This record gives sequence, structure tokens and C-alpha cells, in this order.
Amino acid sequence: MNEFMKKLSLTKPIIQAPMAGGITKPRLASAVSNQGALGSLASGYLKPELLEQQIKEMFELTDAPFQINVFVPLGLEMPPEDQVKKWKENIPLANQVNQFTPVQEEWDDFYQKIDMILRYKVKACSFTFDLPPEDAVKELKTAGCCLIGTASTVEEALLMEERGMDIVVLQGSEAGGHRGAFLPSKGESAIGLMALIPQAADALSVPVIAAGGIIDHRGVKAALTLGAQGVQIGSAFLICHESSAHPVHKQKIREANEADTKLTKLFSGKEARGIVNKWMEEKEHYETQTLPYPYQNTLTKAMRQQASLQNNHDQMSLWAGQGIRSLTEEMSVKQLLHKLCPEDIKI
Amino acid sequence: MNEFMKKLSLTKPIIQAPMAGGITKPRLASAVSNQGALGSLASGYLKPELLEQQIKEMFELTDAPFQINVFVPLGLEMPPEDQVKKWKENIPLANQVNQFTPVQEEWDDFYQKIDMILRYKVKACSFTFDLPPEDAVKELKTAGCCLIGTASTVEEALLMEERGMDIVVLQGSEAGGHRGAFLPSKGESAIGLMALIPQAADALSVPVIAAGGIIDHRGVKAALTLGAQGVQIGSAFLICHESSAHPVHKQKIREANEADTKLTKLFSGKEARGIVNKWMEEKEHYETQTLPYPYQNTLTKAMRQQASLQNNHDQMSLWAGQGIRSLTEEMSVKQLLHKLCPEDIKI
Repeated sequence: MNEFMKKLSLTKPIIQAPMAGGITKPRLASAVSNQGALGSLASGYLKPELLEQQIKEMFELTDAPFQINVFVPLGLEMPPEDQVKKWKENIPLANQVNQFTPVQEEWDDFYQKIDMILRYKVKACSFTFDLPPEDAVKELKTAGCCLIGTASTVEEALLMEERGMDIVVLQGSEAGGHRGAFLPSKGESAIGLMALIPQAADALSVPVIAAGGIIDHRGVKAALTLGAQGVQIGSAFLICHESSAHPVHKQKIREANEADTKLTKLFSGKEARGIVNKWMEEKEHYETQTLPYPYQNTLTKAMRQQASLQNNHDQMSLWAGQGIRSLTEEMSVKQLLHKLCPEDIKI
Repeated sequence: MNEFMKKLSLTKPIIQAPMAGGITKPRLASAVSNQGALGSLASGYLKPELLEQQIKEMFELTDAPFQINVFVPLGLEMPPEDQVKKWKENIPLANQVNQFTPVQEEWDDFYQKIDMILRYKVKACSFTFDLPPEDAVKELKTAGCCLIGTASTVEEALLMEERGMDIVVLQGSEAGGHRGAFLPSKGESAIGLMALIPQAADALSVPVIAAGGIIDHRGVKAALTLGAQGVQIGSAFLICHESSAHPVHKQKIREANEADTKLTKLFSGKEARGIVNKWMEEKEHYETQTLPYPYQNTLTKAMRQQASLQNNHDQMSLWAGQGIRSLTEEMSVKQLLHKLCPEDIKI
């Protein structure tokens, strides 16, 4: 039992990663929370009204603590018109986009979501993509909400602690999905957990959580040995019965091996780890020329949606971490949690 | 105590990584072996006569087991003349190279080294860059030499086992220096140890060793928890008193942080992890256009040698792993081994 588990009244030192884009819904998150781990709703790409529905549903399904993850909007400049035009010609269905959502609108949604978290007294709130703004942090802390930041490097983790985060999730290079890196770095900001955990644990005072490539109790124990107080798991929950991930996405994860994934900006303009597919292979040479997030993401949206409807893995974003060789079986959340943590830890 | 330690009569489950280019010499390797871990000589880039001198010196300094690492020559085709010309114009002093060493000459050296390992009854021999040829494996095994292969992925590790290796070193993405990957992969072949160790340990019958980013006893314990029987350590030994690494290289490692390194092909044509310096920044856009190993390596040799003589870190290859934030202090091999493994394990 440790500070992280105490803060969130958990019996298992495990967070189910908030996976946006319709993967984590109340069914998955409540199943996790009901087993004594931390279930997560992912509010990224979700309008506030839809998030409110999910929160209500969540309270019907569990009395246990859960968290809501919020994307911090990036105020990046609109890309030049000729670059947008080039990509519109290169991405199927991208011509449907007439204009991009103004950043102000995303900030409005962000604050509506924070208000909702306060109103519904949600136990914990996590942030991805950047440091959360100070006013939101202050309000949430005053209300007693537990705040969780996401960091790729020790420097980012230290800034998260300074901003008032109660817990910092360390995203290792092994992790699937979008990278949470928000600072420029001289070299690669994707650091393997074996090196990242002890270096961050030594530098920070708040609990750190390890995310990336963890598949069973060996990984959980190793992360705790390295200095983490818990782990965050994505891909293994993604293929659970209770997950709403696309069946083709689940199947591809069950089939793929550890060297089948790579970091790519092609889908969203932000680095994310996914299983290499036809779209990534075809556009490989444009990897350094993508539009910044969220613009690239907006342009690929219709293509990805159509691919999902057609069960076409060639043009879907098949996010997955490097532990996937071992993920061959779809199981229940209860079975997975038993695999990760055979015995409850008494608090 | 485990199979790996028994095979090599070790009291510490630790291999000092063989670091070529004059870093690991008998002084370092014997200090490691004398403490009950496995010291390593690096025969890469070394003519057989010089290796013989080092072996003789080694036997004067220790009675304990040690290993010799051998590069398996790559039979890659000579690059087109115009590409060579372009790089000669872009690399300082590269014009000194009149012709490349024929691959046959490298194979002659390889077999001379194997003969030497047999003649001196060296306890263990490790291979990097490819599967060792079957005839060499057969001769060494008949003589009772313990064989160690290097692998980046589970698929490579399985091939190493099939080829007759007694032990397989798993090189995690965290590792400094050259990548040992030898198979093409659909995605990235640099896998974080947190994901690589358990997946490889489950697939292989022979002991696996974890290499990359490990800095102290937490990493050693975590690697064993994940299923490894030992660890291989590079950067932390590189900065020891007994290491012959360039003082500037040592200093840069002591100063750098975990996000200051990246994988680059610019120095040798083969991916290697090093601290980003001026040469890497200046030539970043040519990263995908390097000549294949060993041709790029040959062309940058004079530049690197001159930079060493002038204590100029801008043009040296500053190989280092992702654990370097913690490597702030030069210490003795004995002190480092105590940090890694506070107590001997009785065999």
C-alpha cells in the first residue's frame, strides 16, 4: 500500500489508461473501478454533453473512484493554406473539411469539462498534451479533486509537480497511442521505462506511475521495484470484453508482434505509437511534413471513420504499445486485473 | 543464483558491455571480472594482433572468466560511387580514404579472432550485428566456449537460440551505442526492456540478459523480476576510473540528461544511440541518406580521430544510453558493482 493507492482508495496499483476515440466508455471504466483499480473516462474528442452522459452512466455502474482525462488544447498556429491544400489532396475524404475548429472553441469545451468534473465531484482528473492552466488547477485542488499529469521526461515531470499535480504518469517509449511530450528536447523524448522510472522517482516528491508495454504481474512488480507507485495500462484493457474498441483494432493487436509498431505523426500531426498499416507505409516519406496537431487529425477524421465502418484496417489508426506479442487473448477486466495483480493489496 | 551465473561461474548477474573503439581494455574488463561479474574485451575495429596483446594482458590481470565480443562482418554491397563522392565532400577529412576494406579481409580477421579465442581457451564469446556463421559456432561449442548472441526483438532472439547461442543479450531501446538489430521489421525494432524482457523470456529456453538504461540495483532487480537472468551495463562502466573512454566522452555523459540522446546513422551507417552534438544537428537532414555500415563509418573515422585528439565533442561519437541523468559521478568498478548489486549471490 502506498501514497498513490491511499489517495485514490484503490486496492490495486493500476490505472486503466484513458483511451480517447470511443475506446474507453463507462462499461470498461466501471468494470475497472469495481475491481479496486482506477477506471478512466477519456473526454478527448468528446463534446461536453456526451461527457456528461458518460459521467451519469458511470455513477449508475459504480460507487468506486474513477477519473476523467482531459486534453489540454494546443494553441498552435494554423498551417499555411498551400500545405493544407496538399494534404487535402493526399488524404481520402479530407475535402469534406471546410474549416478548422477555432482554438477558442476547444478552450470553451475544456472549461465546461472542468466545471462538470467539479459539479459531479469526480474523484480524479488527468491531463494530457500540456501543463493544465493554473486557474483550472486551483479550482480543482480547492474542491479536493486528485490531479494527475502526463510526462515523457524528468524535466516534464518536474514541471507537472510544480504546477500542482498530485500524481505524475510517466509515459515510457513503450506506450501505445499519442505521446504526451510537451517540451522540445535535444534528443528523443521517448524514454524506455527501465531508464525513465528511477530517474523520475529520484527527482520528484509526488508519486509516479509507469505507463507503457506492461502486460502482466512481472511488469507491475518491476515498475514498483524501479520506484513507481503504480502502473497505467492501455493495450491490455483495449482488447478486453468490456472495451468498446473496434473489433478489427482488437484483432490486429491480438495478431501483432512487438516490432510491428512505430511512432507516427501521419494520423494526427502528433507522434503516436500504432501498428504499421498500409496508410502509414504509403505515406512514410511525408512523416516529417505533417500539419501540426490538431489540424492533421481533423483532415484524417473522415478517412478513419469510413475505414471503421468498412472494417478496413488499412486506414484506421491501430494504436498499440510494445507489449502486444503477449496480448493474444480477449478476456474480462476481472481476468486481466488478476493477471496484473493476483492479490488485492489491503489499504 | 541462476543458469547464466552458473554457466560463467559469476557471483554477480552482471556483464560489462563490450564497448569497441578503445573504451573497454583489459584494465576495465579485468577489474569487472575480479569482482565476480563478467568483464568483456571488445574486438570490433581491432586487428587480430592487437586483440592478442589484450588477451595476454587480461590473463596477467585476472584468473576469473571473461568474454571477447566479435563483430560479425556484414556483406553489404559497396554503395554507388556518386553517393560516396557526396559524403566525401560533406565529412571533414573523408578524402583521406582511397578505398574501402574488402569484406573478405574482415572475414579473415573474424576467423583469426575465433582461432585466438579457441587457442587461449577464453571462457565466453559474444557476437554483435548478425547471426554468427555455423562453422565458427560449431568449433567454439566443441571447445566448450560459452556463446552469447545479441538480439533486439523476440524473433531475432529465437534465431540466436536456434543458431546455438547459450545466452542471448536483449538490447532494449534504452541502450547506448550501436543497435544489434539484424532482421528487417515492419515497425521499430528498438523495444523498451519493460516490454522486451518478458516477451523474450517466455519465448526462449536459454537465459536472457537485459541491456539498456540500467543504472543501479533497482534496474537489476526489475530486470530479474521481468524474467532476465542478468543485466549488461554500458554507460555506467564507461565513466568508471578504469575505463579508457575519452575524458570528454565521460564528461558529456556526466552532464547529459535522458532526453539528450537519439538514434543516429550519421557516424557509421548503422543506428546507434548517442548524445546529440553539433555534427548530428548539422547533418540531421541526411539521416536517411547515409551509406551502409561499414562504409559511412570508414569515411567518418579520420574526423572522429581528429576530434578526439583536439578534445572536440562536436565531432566525436558520444555513445550513451537513456540512464545518463543518473550518471553524474565517476567511480571505481568496485563501487559501481556495489551500487548495482550490493551483495554477492553465492553460487
